[in-house]
Amino acid sequence: MKQLIVLFCILISLNVSAQTDADNLKKIYSNSLTNGKSYEWLDHLSNQIGSRLSGSLGAERAVEYTKEELEKLGLDKVWLQPVMVPKWVRGAPEFAYIETIPGKTTAVNICALGGSVATPNGGVKANVIEVKSIAELEVLGKDKIEGKIVFYNRPMQADLVNTFDAYGGCVDQRYAGAMEAGKYGAVGVIVRSMNLRMDDYPHTGSMSYGNLPNSQRIPSAAISTNHAELLSGMLALDNNIKLFFSQNCQQLKDVQSYNVIGQITGSEFPNEFIVVGGHLDSWDLGDGSHDDGAGCVQSMDVLRLLKESGIKPKRSIRVVLFMNEENGLRGGNKYAEEAKAKGENHIFALESDSGGFTPRGFSFDCNDAVFNKVMGWESLFKPYLIHYFEKGHSGADIGPLKNESIVLAGLVPDSQRYFDYHHASNDTFDAVNKRELELGAATMASLVYLFDKYGTGTISNKNELKD
Amino acid sequence: MKQLIVLFCILISLNVSAQTDADNLKKIYSNSLTNGKSYEWLDHLSNQIGSRLSGSLGAERAVEYTKEELEKLGLDKVWLQPVMVPKWVRGAPEFAYIETIPGKTTAVNICALGGSVATPNGGVKANVIEVKSIAELEVLGKDKIEGKIVFYNRPMQADLVNTFDAYGGCVDQRYAGAMEAGKYGAVGVIVRSMNLRMDDYPHTGSMSYGNLPNSQRIPSAAISTNHAELLSGMLALDNNIKLFFSQNCQQLKDVQSYNVIGQITGSEFPNEFIVVGGHLDSWDLGDGSHDDGAGCVQSMDVLRLLKESGIKPKRSIRVVLFMNEENGLRGGNKYAEEAKAKGENHIFALESDSGGFTPRGFSFDCNDAVFNKVMGWESLFKPYLIHYFEKGHSGADIGPLKNESIVLAGLVPDSQRYFDYHHASNDTFDAVNKRELELGAATMASLVYLFDKYGTGTISNKNELKD
Repeated sequence: MKQLIVLFCILISLNVSAQTDADNLKKIYSNSLTNGKSYEWLDHLSNQIGSRLSGSLGAERAVEYTKEELEKLGLDKVWLQPVMVPKWVRGAPEFAYIETIPGKTTAVNICALGGSVATPNGGVKANVIEVKSIAELEVLGKDKIEGKIVFYNRPMQADLVNTFDAYGGCVDQRYAGAMEAGKYGAVGVIVRSMNLRMDDYPHTGSMSYGNLPNSQRIPSAAISTNHAELLSGMLALDNNIKLFFSQNCQQLKDVQSYNVIGQITGSEFPNEFIVVGGHLDSWDLGDGSHDDGAGCVQSMDVLRLLKESGIKPKRSIRVVLFMNEENGLRGGNKYAEEAKAKGENHIFALESDSGGFTPRGFSFDCNDAVFNKVMGWESLFKPYLIHYFEKGHSGADIGPLKNESIVLAGLVPDSQRYFDYHHASNDTFDAVNKRELELGAATMASLVYLFDKYGTGTISNKNELKD
Repeated sequence: MKQLIVLFCILISLNVSAQTDADNLKKIYSNSLTNGKSYEWLDHLSNQIGSRLSGSLGAERAVEYTKEELEKLGLDKVWLQPVMVPKWVRGAPEFAYIETIPGKTTAVNICALGGSVATPNGGVKANVIEVKSIAELEVLGKDKIEGKIVFYNRPMQADLVNTFDAYGGCVDQRYAGAMEAGKYGAVGVIVRSMNLRMDDYPHTGSMSYGNLPNSQRIPSAAISTNHAELLSGMLALDNNIKLFFSQNCQQLKDVQSYNVIGQITGSEFPNEFIVVGGHLDSWDLGDGSHDDGAGCVQSMDVLRLLKESGIKPKRSIRVVLFMNEENGLRGGNKYAEEAKAKGENHIFALESDSGGFTPRGFSFDCNDAVFNKVMGWESLFKPYLIHYFEKGHSGADIGPLKNESIVLAGLVPDSQRYFDYHHASNDTFDAVNKRELELGAATMASLVYLFDKYGTGTISNKNELKD
């Protein structure tokens, strides 16, 4: 009989706990959808501040603004973490045209890739050789490449349902295209924009020259998908046509910047840390509303949502707005370095850096035991149509925190529209839907709540084991 | 040993079957994402034809266009099914203003509700009584309502994750608001638009006077959410302010129209029918791109996708583009009537009428046994991030087909943005994303493929049972 009573009490307590969790998730979602702050913050970041490339005035103002807003939330601590960041500037607008016969030109839309060198004064004009991959360069050899502009034109693969997979299958052209073409004596590189849609926007993004000597560093730009098709079509008619482009971007000296950090200190395990974050810097063409203004304001709202829902975290919860994800990852590296130096025990980190679209779930970088634990929470998320729980990539900024025990996760929003805007001038506030953004914030807050409450251990009293 | 061999063969054949299904779904999705026709068709419907209110020239042109396009697909049969439809016309643009003191006015954005009568010549101007529900009318009584304009201002509930639930909780104000207020001697009705977003677009939609005598039929219009808030705010300051509105819409005589039908005749069971459809009519304010141009072009593409994927249906598959869903359901009723009269055995019908957004799954109107069968297909859809399989509403146009044995289903796309555009002038082509539309078409084609192959029976050889 006694055993039955004990069993009964256990069942009751399990049920109460599940009930409490369901209630708390409901509070979090309701608050976000009816009283969320993320959209208002994003409006300011996008429309009052605008683009936030590392080292720019926009980035500086964004640091000030988000720090002030976090201070208004009554957190336990808000501070700036200094970090030196690279400063690359686009300079005057780029200009490019296709020349069919001397004097007969058609303008095309390009933008310099982040980190590219400028063209020589007066621009560069040369014949064009179109390739679909870096591997083709070796086959063509120096003879056919030297003195020419290499045009990388492999499109994103449309039949991959996850558009990030399509991105991953193409972005080598953008990142390493100039480095590789430079070795064969090319005078410039034009890359088809990483965009699944046919439109007129060129999409920038990071590129690298690796250890290539300055003499072999050639200018590199992205061309809109419509104009990539135009250029390819004209080359098919006559491969003697020329392309002209000019850009005067440059890499300046590193400048001082900051990660912005806010903290609710844990009531039971203040020395265990949970991080939720996005990156505050953006590319310079649009307002960085999806990439990654959305992730920043959602992360800020996670802490507000926990407070407003009456949840007192056991562990210390930090929002970290990382600086310089786009062209250096200096903020992410700095945060992890300091955490390590101080011996801070980070148990869980969650990043939102895939746009502010309807959340579908999370991808986890963790071991099977933790993953199984997470799967036990799946039903709590079902009312909010959150169903995607898979192992995979978490986030660039939280990557440097990786060690044997930390659990890393990334919010997975619907990806269909993301590359329509990614790194382009149309990544603006109007492309973000308020409810979708708020659902993302609530979904993140819910996972943070569960990891805070239950820890990342896979047996009941994990803290005793760890301490 | 013999038994083992039999078992082995069964296992192999089950596995081959599953493999074939996975391969066929892959073909369908790949074709839709790389070679889909839905977006091109929708471009024409939206941008070349435009709105398609029943009885309008747009509706007539849409019938011709879709019939022609279906004929190009090389189906076994394409035809028009005649149906008489109501013809309501908006007339001159509506006009409305708030008058604080005589001569001091602020214009507000309204649109007549579909089916409403006109205002008297020269419009109506009266004091306003704001209510949050029809039930409040009875409490207020005739004394407080007579001679006034009733302003229904209950917003859609933002914390419901499925926005259709929020719509369902509000739409009685639009549909029955004038009928009820007319009984208390109100002179007009203004309804807050069924829109979760704060913006300037009024959203139309159907309303009814029931059996109310003509003398009690009062004009009814929707006001934009921003102006609903403005009006409410001004009423809070001074409930003596007046509202003026004028509209000269009218109900004309019924006119001839058509459902557009295309068929692939089944190879094994030609007398078993599967229907996939949307409604070709739309409201008159936008282009009806999401509601329901998207559902029409997706349904058309289902038949093309099956053909192009080399799938030869066992059963007869029909695409039906229903006329007059918005203000009469005449097309849906006519189709079901004729099917019944001809003794056509319809086993499954699928409608897409919830917008062209990223598909999440389906809702089913069927018995538990069939639903369990469907759940067995869940894993086939997982690669395409289709996870939502629930019982619920299917679609208005296929509803009249309901009987004891038919399985009805509705495509369930992401609902967050739907009511931003629903029945408003911003329901235009630019609000539809090509990939999202194509994923929906592929998801529908996949379900049709599975129901065609396996039938709706819940034991292996269902046809023998049925025939």
